[in-house]
Amino acid sequence: MENKVFVFGHKNPDTDSICSSMVHEILDKKNGWETKAVRLGNINKETQYVLDYLKIEAPELIEKVEEGQEVLLVDHNEFSQSVDGIEKAKILGVTDHHKIANFETSEPLYYTAKPYGCTATILYEEFKALGHTIERKEAILMASAIISDTLLLKSPTTTQKDKKALEELETIAGINVNEYGLEMLKAGTDLDDFTEEELINIDSKVFEKENIKYEIAQVNTVSIEDVLKREEKLKEVINKTIEEKGLSLFVLAITDILNSNSEIIALGEKTDVIKVAFNKELENDKALLEGVVSRKKQLLPNIDKNI
Amino acid sequence: MENKVFVFGHKNPDTDSICSSMVHEILDKKNGWETKAVRLGNINKETQYVLDYLKIEAPELIEKVEEGQEVLLVDHNEFSQSVDGIEKAKILGVTDHHKIANFETSEPLYYTAKPYGCTATILYEEFKALGHTIERKEAILMASAIISDTLLLKSPTTTQKDKKALEELETIAGINVNEYGLEMLKAGTDLDDFTEEELINIDSKVFEKENIKYEIAQVNTVSIEDVLKREEKLKEVINKTIEEKGLSLFVLAITDILNSNSEIIALGEKTDVIKVAFNKELENDKALLEGVVSRKKQLLPNIDKNI
Repeated sequence: MENKVFVFGHKNPDTDSICSSMVHEILDKKNGWETKAVRLGNINKETQYVLDYLKIEAPELIEKVEEGQEVLLVDHNEFSQSVDGIEKAKILGVTDHHKIANFETSEPLYYTAKPYGCTATILYEEFKALGHTIERKEAILMASAIISDTLLLKSPTTTQKDKKALEELETIAGINVNEYGLEMLKAGTDLDDFTEEELINIDSKVFEKENIKYEIAQVNTVSIEDVLKREEKLKEVINKTIEEKGLSLFVLAITDILNSNSEIIALGEKTDVIKVAFNKELENDKALLEGVVSRKKQLLPNIDKNI
Repeated sequence: MENKVFVFGHKNPDTDSICSSMVHEILDKKNGWETKAVRLGNINKETQYVLDYLKIEAPELIEKVEEGQEVLLVDHNEFSQSVDGIEKAKILGVTDHHKIANFETSEPLYYTAKPYGCTATILYEEFKALGHTIERKEAILMASAIISDTLLLKSPTTTQKDKKALEELETIAGINVNEYGLEMLKAGTDLDDFTEEELINIDSKVFEKENIKYEIAQVNTVSIEDVLKREEKLKEVINKTIEEKGLSLFVLAITDILNSNSEIIALGEKTDVIKVAFNKELENDKALLEGVVSRKKQLLPNIDKNI
């Protein structure tokens, strides 16, 4: 068993999960506490852009933890999204911005949750509260996480706290947030290496309501048109997924991060839900949803209400 | 449905649950937010001493909450210890010092947990972090909660943070913590009004391990001898409880808050556990456990390990 306390984000890690675990380690060191940031999966292209920019290595990959391993969770709490073996680990603390579910401990712990757009914004406030100086490296890590989770402050999950944090971090980091952020987000939209099967699985979640199962997948892009060149093949793999998983509906949202719109492809027996949910008719199984960029705040609640 | 956000501690409220909900309301007001402290049960004699000292009224009693009622929890998180209807309430925040279990939300929220001896110590740190002045009333409420939960800093649940908070609160409150605290704790030990049935239920919890059910009850006193005058009647009602609930063991801890010892009465088929757990032979179903005052940190883990 590793002596150091592990800090990690969720499986299939995004930029917030990676950057916030690294920032947590830095903050812990300032508090006189040796912890070690690790990760539960591959680094995506967006996050790789951040690491390359800073010329630093990704945290070490771990597959599972041993019984009794001391851990700190960031950017998640649900055991199903956490490391294998989490049930028998000793959870010392959690820093998160999600709802709490499928989570329990056998001992009292530190738990800091705030309903912000990003975990890094909570860590930013910890630096402030403890009077620690924020240096360039952690400023860029935190700014990158906020840019990623809020799509450059355009997502409806964005709060005033995220805006304020990003504004101050921009100065410390010595970057132009809009230029840097757009390059970073664009790096994450390079879908060339992905097969269609992989593409619909980059960021996908299955939901269930009264025995009706449906799935919402999302990809970010700077050109919806580019992604739609693969429309026929995408529909093929979506229909295959519907059959294999017994889904009533599959929605793939292709989100234009420059213009904050999403083109959706909707397939399955329950596609009529889309009309009621978004007041839009599907044409060729597709619809453009203007201003829609968030699964959590826009796609999911509207579909869930009408399915 | 009440418009104001309700703030409350656990059912069968102790001094921390009552005082911390009142302090939370005061803190919220300083943050420009109108909330209302309420309570889920009767005020015990110890807490009544605090309210009388401050010449203030207890928070309003509530039985349940309506669907969608906005609430803030202090000093607990488990739904089984919370208000009836909690599953359908909107939980905006939690401030607590217990392990997390049987708790979930459907939305992101504020959650502040720290492994301290008392919820009020966490609230004290919030006042500090936000730069708010602590006035006499809230200083006495917080000091009382810390004194109660830590038995005047003698319980092994006490942390350095609790000590530091109580030290500063003593000055603001303008009280002598030892004198005030002892009077307050003594007020809580007045057991004259209680029948033996009531006495073993003042502060009692049932535990279960591999289908073995056992119960640990605790009463605080300044004279163990005084309580033991009722020994025969207490044994009678304990045996009745064992039979009714199908318990393998019932331990009543009579805790001397002046000398930090507990005399236990142990009955049931599994009383041999006591010898292994505490290295003490029962004599007439009783044993004096020196230095033992905490169910959470001393009685429960030792019994649980050996049952």
